[in-house]
Amino acid sequence: MATDNLSAVLYGINDLRLEQAPLPGEPGPNEVILESHTVGICGSDIHFLTEGRIGPFVLKDPIILGHESAATVVKVGPGVNNFKPGDRVAVEPQIPCRVCDPCKYGRYNMCPDTKFFATPPYNGSLTRYYAHAADFCFKLPDHVSYEEAALMEPLAVAIQASRRADIKIGDSVLIVGAGPIGMASVLVAKAFGASKVLVTDINARRVEDAQKLGAEFSYVLPRGADAEESANKINELMGGAPDVTLECTGAGPAVSLAIYAAKMGGVVCLVGMGSVPATVPLTYAITKELTLQTSLRYANCYPLALSLIADGKVDPKPMITHRFPLEKALDAFECVKRGDGVKVMIKCKE
Amino acid sequence: MATDNLSAVLYGINDLRLEQAPLPGEPGPNEVILESHTVGICGSDIHFLTEGRIGPFVLKDPIILGHESAATVVKVGPGVNNFKPGDRVAVEPQIPCRVCDPCKYGRYNMCPDTKFFATPPYNGSLTRYYAHAADFCFKLPDHVSYEEAALMEPLAVAIQASRRADIKIGDSVLIVGAGPIGMASVLVAKAFGASKVLVTDINARRVEDAQKLGAEFSYVLPRGADAEESANKINELMGGAPDVTLECTGAGPAVSLAIYAAKMGGVVCLVGMGSVPATVPLTYAITKELTLQTSLRYANCYPLALSLIADGKVDPKPMITHRFPLEKALDAFECVKRGDGVKVMIKCKE
Amino acid sequence: MATDNLSAVLYGINDLRLEQAPLPGEPGPNEVILESHTVGICGSDIHFLTEGRIGPFVLKDPIILGHESAATVVKVGPGVNNFKPGDRVAVEPQIPCRVCDPCKYGRYNMCPDTKFFATPPYNGSLTRYYAHAADFCFKLPDHVSYEEAALMEPLAVAIQASRRADIKIGDSVLIVGAGPIGMASVLVAKAFGASKVLVTDINARRVEDAQKLGAEFSYVLPRGADAEESANKINELMGGAPDVTLECTGAGPAVSLAIYAAKMGGVVCLVGMGSVPATVPLTYAITKELTLQTSLRYANCYPLALSLIADGKVDPKPMITHRFPLEKALDAFECVKRGDGVKVMIKCKE
Amino acid sequence: MATDNLSAVLYGINDLRLEQAPLPGEPGPNEVILESHTVGICGSDIHFLTEGRIGPFVLKDPIILGHESAATVVKVGPGVNNFKPGDRVAVEPQIPCRVCDPCKYGRYNMCPDTKFFATPPYNGSLTRYYAHAADFCFKLPDHVSYEEAALMEPLAVAIQASRRADIKIGDSVLIVGAGPIGMASVLVAKAFGASKVLVTDINARRVEDAQKLGAEFSYVLPRGADAEESANKINELMGGAPDVTLECTGAGPAVSLAIYAAKMGGVVCLVGMGSVPATVPLTYAITKELTLQTSLRYANCYPLALSLIADGKVDPKPMITHRFPLEKALDAFECVKRGDGVKVMIKCKE
Repeated sequence: MATDNLSAVLYGINDLRLEQAPLPGEPGPNEVILESHTVGICGSDIHFLTEGRIGPFVLKDPIILGHESAATVVKVGPGVNNFKPGDRVAVEPQIPCRVCDPCKYGRYNMCPDTKFFATPPYNGSLTRYYAHAADFCFKLPDHVSYEEAALMEPLAVAIQASRRADIKIGDSVLIVGAGPIGMASVLVAKAFGASKVLVTDINARRVEDAQKLGAEFSYVLPRGADAEESANKINELMGGAPDVTLECTGAGPAVSLAIYAAKMGGVVCLVGMGSVPATVPLTYAITKELTLQTSLRYANCYPLALSLIADGKVDPKPMITHRFPLEKALDAFECVKRGDGVKVMIKCKE
Repeated sequence: MATDNLSAVLYGINDLRLEQAPLPGEPGPNEVILESHTVGICGSDIHFLTEGRIGPFVLKDPIILGHESAATVVKVGPGVNNFKPGDRVAVEPQIPCRVCDPCKYGRYNMCPDTKFFATPPYNGSLTRYYAHAADFCFKLPDHVSYEEAALMEPLAVAIQASRRADIKIGDSVLIVGAGPIGMASVLVAKAFGASKVLVTDINARRVEDAQKLGAEFSYVLPRGADAEESANKINELMGGAPDVTLECTGAGPAVSLAIYAAKMGGVVCLVGMGSVPATVPLTYAITKELTLQTSLRYANCYPLALSLIADGKVDPKPMITHRFPLEKALDAFECVKRGDGVKVMIKCKE
Repeated sequence: MATDNLSAVLYGINDLRLEQAPLPGEPGPNEVILESHTVGICGSDIHFLTEGRIGPFVLKDPIILGHESAATVVKVGPGVNNFKPGDRVAVEPQIPCRVCDPCKYGRYNMCPDTKFFATPPYNGSLTRYYAHAADFCFKLPDHVSYEEAALMEPLAVAIQASRRADIKIGDSVLIVGAGPIGMASVLVAKAFGASKVLVTDINARRVEDAQKLGAEFSYVLPRGADAEESANKINELMGGAPDVTLECTGAGPAVSLAIYAAKMGGVVCLVGMGSVPATVPLTYAITKELTLQTSLRYANCYPLALSLIADGKVDPKPMITHRFPLEKALDAFECVKRGDGVKVMIKCKE
Repeated sequence: MATDNLSAVLYGINDLRLEQAPLPGEPGPNEVILESHTVGICGSDIHFLTEGRIGPFVLKDPIILGHESAATVVKVGPGVNNFKPGDRVAVEPQIPCRVCDPCKYGRYNMCPDTKFFATPPYNGSLTRYYAHAADFCFKLPDHVSYEEAALMEPLAVAIQASRRADIKIGDSVLIVGAGPIGMASVLVAKAFGASKVLVTDINARRVEDAQKLGAEFSYVLPRGADAEESANKINELMGGAPDVTLECTGAGPAVSLAIYAAKMGGVVCLVGMGSVPATVPLTYAITKELTLQTSLRYANCYPLALSLIADGKVDPKPMITHRFPLEKALDAFECVKRGDGVKVMIKCKE
């Protein structure tokens, strides 16, 4: 372990600095020390950068950003038998408390005390070295790359949503929103056995990119379009109303579209978070006895994300559009802020 | 079977007439002829009376009102072996098509072709005699009265909602709205094993009546109160956030209250239908990974409704506040329109 | 509709005759008249042929055999709007009563009064013409052949089992028995997203055939092998204990193998029926908190079977080894009795 | 904390000794030191006493017996905020590893590394003082006694079984076996809303005792009776086949009885463990498409057990037949070995 621990530290709104952070100490029981390799930039990183907060999570003291993480094990703590130095791993970016009710019920994504990477006051992985719980590291087979491992994070979001929405083989699936989560959802919905997928967004280029990942249909939403009319057009294109809709934008009109489009007895799963109260046709949802599911981060999704990549059932690599070394992390964030590309990767190790 | 078939026929908005309707013919296979005994008035009857429609269901030709029904078998069709003339029955007020996908999947409440009583163009049970499918009649034990049988309809609505919301033993349950469905929900939630129930409404008298049915807690909502503040007060009263909320009003602020009050990972089931789009804090629902369930009428709920009454697990009789003979059906409807009482019963047989 | 109605009629044990049967009359409501095209022979046909009974179903009067059916619509009854003469269909070989509890709950495969093809006293489809319920016919897209349609029956059995066993994406699946149902199960388990499938049988040729359908692993069981030892070998081959096992033989030692092999908390689904009580290590099942699921025929599985074939997700055609014209149906049955080939098809129309 | 730590230590088959054991050290994080108050004797304690093993768990070094435990908090470790010295608690007798897959999925009863009380090599609670994880202690309301708290253990077993069997309100439930687990199952099945419960056993006195706890029906099994005949008699008594059966004996003929008695589509949950392979009519289970569920210990069941007692929904106290001070623990074990009474309590604190 070198002594360099260059890190991307967020001090305040639009105040991101590259600087040396303290190196992690010796690993404790069930702990490993990781050398960070590849970290993807996520929309939530940008939110913290530009607004200093997301909902109740407010930046008070500086934190290291980054949570879509791939790394190499450099040290293992006492009792850690399934890892050895040199192992390449995908890193699930959280350590739940393990003792609260949700943790014991298996829904640790709802743990109120979970230490989630790059969410104040916890540090993320845009650094050289950090410590982590061994059971939240997942060993990569040789044929899975660090970049694929970093992309397991948005895949895990889509897997959680697909599980919450109970996508079953043969289902038709509508995906509203063609950002990174919408794109990951296209990949995952197909892998879950969706018979047909339609992806929609107001951004034509995004829709095109997302469809290339495997969606049978696409529809570019006209700005300001009536939600019910758009739903009808989507139903026509799909040859029927979708069994499941994954709503990946959080925008009120998008949720309305999802409700109007849904099949009798169908499921609409809300994945994307908007910032304000949404005005939506709930009565319409009741007349179709819909299930409006919601999905928050992920629990127990990394093993499947890894298996899907390792078995070749999903290929998320086309989502990557840019790469920067850690030393140019500030440029990487500027790139994402400008809306260039889809998924920007920062290489913490050359 | 007498020749009198006095019926309460709705001709148009606020145009309800008492007149003779055609008698039913001979019963076909799986059919029985019923002599109507007791019929409760439901809010949806009033909607058709005062507005001529509910959502897509528009009154075009006159229909007989009434769907909360108890009756006596007078004739049985060929192949009907489990009923004989004189049997007292509760009547599930629908005949689904039996061949569509939802019918075959067991969710016949979503059958697009179901013949639902008193929903245009189908007649209801405010009459002397009518035909019905034998398998939607449920034989009453001697100790269950016709009035209890008629009350099985709102109980079935509450059972469907409690099943959709998956109320489990030990759950804490919030019931928003203390009208007849809210009251039935108090009874059913307790029967489903709820450890504590809080009922809330803006109407203090209704809250009081509903609490008497078995709720441990109640809260009278101040008109115009902030939804989040009310939620906090309710959580304080309950000693924690509810596992399940049954929203029985359909009002936007009530749905918001339900979302604010809910426990991490909890369920909010929308039962009450409002008339306009609702503005609700969906982002908040996502941060708690709630399930926003909806519930539409009922399927396969009458057997449990009967068993709950027969076993003494629920006693819906206190909901009854008024009784009128069929000849005074117009007075009965006026009584409900004035908001007097809770559940008004019309006796089709003296 | 011609006047020829040549049919394969079973009169008694090993007494199958080719003879003219009465032509169907005019179709009633929700009914169609079908011209039989292709019918696969199933093990249960052979059971009736050689033993005159299966469990409680005893041949008393002659019946027409055959239930894996593809046909062409020749007439439609009143109210049948989704079919017209000339439509090519897969035929789900049953008409449940539609009024009993299981029918109304959506589990019509448990209907005690279902009219199941070629199960005494009901006729099957080894004939020229027969009547059927329109909603149990499924229109074939042009690119799906009659033979694929006939193979939807064993696929439906495997789909019901896979649903009952709740096979989820990423699961490892063990399939015990490599007869037609085991083979269909390999296809369906892979389509349901199984990450790896191992198929085992005592017959090496069958194991080889089944593996070719898409199983990653196979194991030929030594005759008389110890169930626990075999389970250990299978677990080694699979790189771990299976999440789900589909037991397609009904033999006691095979069920024991399934229980020994299963993962902690896993599912063993019993599909194959044996003839005698089985001696199995139930205590072992409890110490792993297994779910021993069972699966009976199918309900609501034909739509998915069709979708899987139409979308190219399963290709059951390699299961077909022999074809005979209806005129040579007796030869076809001899062929199956000899154990030649896998799936034998009878062409009712040249 | 006194210096006396008298404990009931098992040295080998029928070699139980009362002797001083080491006192626990200072509590670590999330740890409490407990003063043992009341401990019930369970069948598994007797198995270890008389056979030195249960399945794979073999006594090698001496262990302290006892796992049905109620205690008083005497010290709390760092970070334990919800307990203080003097708190009265029910003690869930296990500490799972918290990092394996089952732990993270919420099924920690399947954790291969769980430290379960009085299961080699882990000590139990028949002692004066011991350390435990704070989150596996449950604070008692003032009106819940230590004895009721100790009885939460068999209730937790019955709750796990009732959840695995998915007992729903209105279900009819058959309970096979009237030992302590069968008795707890009667209490819990009624609390879960069972409309009628029948309890059966070959021991007439036990059947009588169990029925008094709330079963509507009972049946004393004749020794050596035919399982199918007994099932028919039970179905007659219950007025139909049970929706759910909890099999609490582990005996092969009892499992057969459960399968014969079950309703089409019903559930049989295996709770009791037998010692040898069982011969059971699995084909019969398939023809009814039963679910043969199994249940192992418990996970997340103590909170409900406490709530059921605190709310007065179950009263397990009538199960207690004998009480002994810790100093007479050897007599207490002799009492259970003789088969006297039902539940014997040892008071670790006078």
